[in-house]
Amino acid sequence: MTNATPVVRLAELEIDPAQLDAYLALLREEIDASVRLEPGVLTLNAVALKDSPDQIRLMEIYADQAAYDAHLKSPHFARYKTATATMVRSLTLHETIPIALRSKP
Amino acid sequence: MTNATPVVRLAELEIDPAQLDAYLALLREEIDASVRLEPGVLTLNAVALKDSPDQIRLMEIYADQAAYDAHLKSPHFARYKTATATMVRSLTLHETIPIALRSKP
Repeated sequence: MTNATPVVRLAELEIDPAQLDAYLALLREEIDASVRLEPGVLTLNAVALKDSPDQIRLMEIYADQAAYDAHLKSPHFARYKTATATMVRSLTLHETIPIALRSKP
Repeated sequence: MTNATPVVRLAELEIDPAQLDAYLALLREEIDASVRLEPGVLTLNAVALKDSPDQIRLMEIYADQAAYDAHLKSPHFARYKTATATMVRSLTLHETIPIALRSKP
């Protein structure tokens, strides 16, 4: 991670239960491609709530604002957005202020 | 990260605004100690919502259930819980099912 303040975004999604498996496959593809191909995508963590598996939560860490903007314009993100458009029932995005981001080296 | 399925927990906290700075200092201390001292604490990421900075969100990744249980019994976690007891107005914990956890090497 550079010394620039990273951009951390939280996303809360509700997915159509009938399309959940298909959605998860597309999300995994998008995450794998983004972290592999984009230098500024530092972390993409996605989980489902155990009590409501159609509720998805993401924490996304970008090196800086430019990295985040580039991610939104990437072909794999566009593909994911188009392919999942009918699967996502709701999407809430939160901009955040990082407090501490610590991982094992 | 080992091949065991990691345990990922989400926490949503609301902090007394009058005690926010003190709370953040204690949270940072607890996170730094946990990641440095506990082999099974893989990631602790804490952010505040930009629109409501007294709303804190954590994503916590443990190597496995035993690592999570050990964390709850650690002296630094006990100290954090005691010191912040009057600062935390609400706490919601979510157990989760990991979908994809990807970071730059």
